[in-house]
Amino acid sequence: MNNFLSVKDATDINHLIERARYFKTHPHENAYIGQHKTLINLFFNPSLRTRLSTEKAGTTLGFQVITMDMAGGWKLEFEDGVVMNLDRAEHVKEAAGVLSQYCDILAVRSFPGLEDRNADYEDRIIHAFRKYATVPVVSLESATRHPLQSLADCITIAEHRKTERPKVVLTWAPHPRQLPQAVPNSFAEWMTGWDEVDLVIANPEGFDLAPEFTAGAEVLHDQAEALRGADFVYAKNWSAYEPYGATTDRTDWLVDTDKMALTNDAYFMHCLPVRRNVVVSDGVLDSPRSLVLQQANNRTWSAAAVLEALLVR
Amino acid sequence: MNNFLSVKDATDINHLIERARYFKTHPHENAYIGQHKTLINLFFNPSLRTRLSTEKAGTTLGFQVITMDMAGGWKLEFEDGVVMNLDRAEHVKEAAGVLSQYCDILAVRSFPGLEDRNADYEDRIIHAFRKYATVPVVSLESATRHPLQSLADCITIAEHRKTERPKVVLTWAPHPRQLPQAVPNSFAEWMTGWDEVDLVIANPEGFDLAPEFTAGAEVLHDQAEALRGADFVYAKNWSAYEPYGATTDRTDWLVDTDKMALTNDAYFMHCLPVRRNVVVSDGVLDSPRSLVLQQANNRTWSAAAVLEALLVR
Amino acid sequence: MNNFLSVKDATDINHLIERARYFKTHPHENAYIGQHKTLINLFFNPSLRTRLSTEKAGTTLGFQVITMDMAGGWKLEFEDGVVMNLDRAEHVKEAAGVLSQYCDILAVRSFPGLEDRNADYEDRIIHAFRKYATVPVVSLESATRHPLQSLADCITIAEHRKTERPKVVLTWAPHPRQLPQAVPNSFAEWMTGWDEVDLVIANPEGFDLAPEFTAGAEVLHDQAEALRGADFVYAKNWSAYEPYGATTDRTDWLVDTDKMALTNDAYFMHCLPVRRNVVVSDGVLDSPRSLVLQQANNRTWSAAAVLEALLVR
Repeated sequence: MNNFLSVKDATDINHLIERARYFKTHPHENAYIGQHKTLINLFFNPSLRTRLSTEKAGTTLGFQVITMDMAGGWKLEFEDGVVMNLDRAEHVKEAAGVLSQYCDILAVRSFPGLEDRNADYEDRIIHAFRKYATVPVVSLESATRHPLQSLADCITIAEHRKTERPKVVLTWAPHPRQLPQAVPNSFAEWMTGWDEVDLVIANPEGFDLAPEFTAGAEVLHDQAEALRGADFVYAKNWSAYEPYGATTDRTDWLVDTDKMALTNDAYFMHCLPVRRNVVVSDGVLDSPRSLVLQQANNRTWSAAAVLEALLVR
Repeated sequence: MNNFLSVKDATDINHLIERARYFKTHPHENAYIGQHKTLINLFFNPSLRTRLSTEKAGTTLGFQVITMDMAGGWKLEFEDGVVMNLDRAEHVKEAAGVLSQYCDILAVRSFPGLEDRNADYEDRIIHAFRKYATVPVVSLESATRHPLQSLADCITIAEHRKTERPKVVLTWAPHPRQLPQAVPNSFAEWMTGWDEVDLVIANPEGFDLAPEFTAGAEVLHDQAEALRGADFVYAKNWSAYEPYGATTDRTDWLVDTDKMALTNDAYFMHCLPVRRNVVVSDGVLDSPRSLVLQQANNRTWSAAAVLEALLVR
Repeated sequence: MNNFLSVKDATDINHLIERARYFKTHPHENAYIGQHKTLINLFFNPSLRTRLSTEKAGTTLGFQVITMDMAGGWKLEFEDGVVMNLDRAEHVKEAAGVLSQYCDILAVRSFPGLEDRNADYEDRIIHAFRKYATVPVVSLESATRHPLQSLADCITIAEHRKTERPKVVLTWAPHPRQLPQAVPNSFAEWMTGWDEVDLVIANPEGFDLAPEFTAGAEVLHDQAEALRGADFVYAKNWSAYEPYGATTDRTDWLVDTDKMALTNDAYFMHCLPVRRNVVVSDGVLDSPRSLVLQQANNRTWSAAAVLEALLVR
């Protein structure tokens, strides 16, 4: 694996899941893998789980891990040929080139602005780093995707499925703020790319995700219909793809115990952070069917599997 | 020891002091203790000494240490049953549950607001982490207590006492800003709980600490009377418990060489940071009787003793 | 070596270069050097290269490295005898004394204010830490100097020179913001102190550096004349020393391929971050004669050589 930006980089999802589960059960025996290697994590946006789980994965594999918050420093220029006489003090060409000399793997988090869809969907920050870095680049969530989360979700489903081909429902849920599409985009492309589950996506009219991510999934606008018979319910809010960034006040899409009763005793999933009693009720989140902590735990092991795969490329 | 939030968690103070002094004299032989263990330090407020000494203690014992500044991230919700549609993006239930999966000990700093006494004295942030974390929780200073400081103070007194049962005076001192009661509360409950010193507390009328912390100590409102015969003088400003958060401009309570002359050639102590010539004069702070650097040094070893005790619980 | 603040601390530049090049070619064999040692990096100003390269150098030598951003914490007092009743909560006497107990080497970054020349050129923050710390102090760029950069520049020139005594030209270049003189001051004193190159400094009238740094160098106000026959061209903007902090809009001083054609097929150097097409054209920066990434890489090895030298003092 040369980089880890989307499901397309994962040539063998089941092998990654297998390695992640191996690291999870053997956490203390793998420090030789990253010996004398350095992992740099660059955060252009805040992070709790991603930062901690990736640091933990790195040190578990023996990496020297350096985490850098870019919000407090100078701004980078991502356009080529520009006369840099405004507020951007360094070009990504230099930044990526320099950073590549200080590390063996470069991980980057960068959120979308949610104002200019074309700019966001070019995902220019992560792609600029991939273009100019001379070491493998890992997405810690980009403008359009969150692949380490999706791999952790695959691991969690693999650990809990009881049927050969479970029904997985990704349902839109309410939220007071405008959120990116990165997590649902990524979840959709990983579920369909993995091809071990049947994916149904439920969202209000006007909230369909970009078609490039949902090919192979069934898209419904009736939440109850979608939930019927589900083995896994994955709740997540996102703002609209068209008109880009639009939000809606559909509080009736909150996932509660009545809705979960429509399912096949489904597990509940969410990537966290989650707003209780807005996205999902306390009753669902505090029930034994909730897998949200397990998903968060698997973030460490999905990162470990990816870091290993990038070294043996 | 299951957690470390107050003196009540320390079942044997002298054993902690002994272990701290052992680590101080044998700093390079204990990396086996925290091998394969992770310590996460969460800071909701700024820190210099606490952060550095706790990181140093952790790595001296072989822990992987991750320090996280929470000020730059999203806000946590601490109330149960709330509809989280305002500015708090994650509930402490999830945060503590997730963090517990990434570490073996979770340390938290969280200051009081100094506006609502009931809220502050519930100490809800540290208690919420204790409630929802599945690993031991350490206070890096909470709204009402600073136990790692107090243990370091015990160590420092143990190292310097020349009598069986020295007289220790905790004296209020002036300060231009409104400060918490955490350090003096904690110092009082540790000195009386340790029961190897006689504690006298001196403060202006109206600045008595909460009674739950001062039982067993003599409280005087005449600083000179309190200082007479003291073996250790511990200076610290605090705002009033009643009316909560009130301050006063009693610059006559500054500790200077004239006041130290009233004592039994006492050592001077302060937890730092200290405002020179406001709390204490240059003459006292720069004299060989000042133990402020020794106290700061012992922060490392008090943290080491606590981390060890939490692993062998 | 007792501290590393200026070229005067480097008693043998060629030995430092030699050690740096040894560490560069043997990066995985030197973790014994800093075993059981702690390096603390204090940043009063932002940093990318300096932070990452110094962290990498420290861990390569086996140090425990702690990096601390001081911008988010309380302010330090640097004056003696002050009544500290304003916004500065801790005196550098205590801060430096405390930090010295937590580490074996203390590294500090602190930029100038560019308003009061006397205050800036006293370089009081770094000197206060040198005065009160009981461990060696390293400059991570102070108000007037950036010695780790200059040593990296010496290494880079040593690696690429093809003549016994190359001609090195330090040329002022345009920039939209007011910048310190630290990098050019330091480069000038290291090039003349090293005494293995001929240094020519080119800058517009009114932009001469302080004489204490340029003794031994030729100063010209005609860029083309200076560049003729150069083997290395080092571009850098700086604001005026007299009147202090003045800037100018001399965009004709940008370094482009036409100007480089005047040289002896010179290498191009810059300390980064660099504003493309303001300081230097894309054509020069993207050419194989650009050494900017090599300079950045050598930051790691210059720091490693300095850390080692401070331990064996």
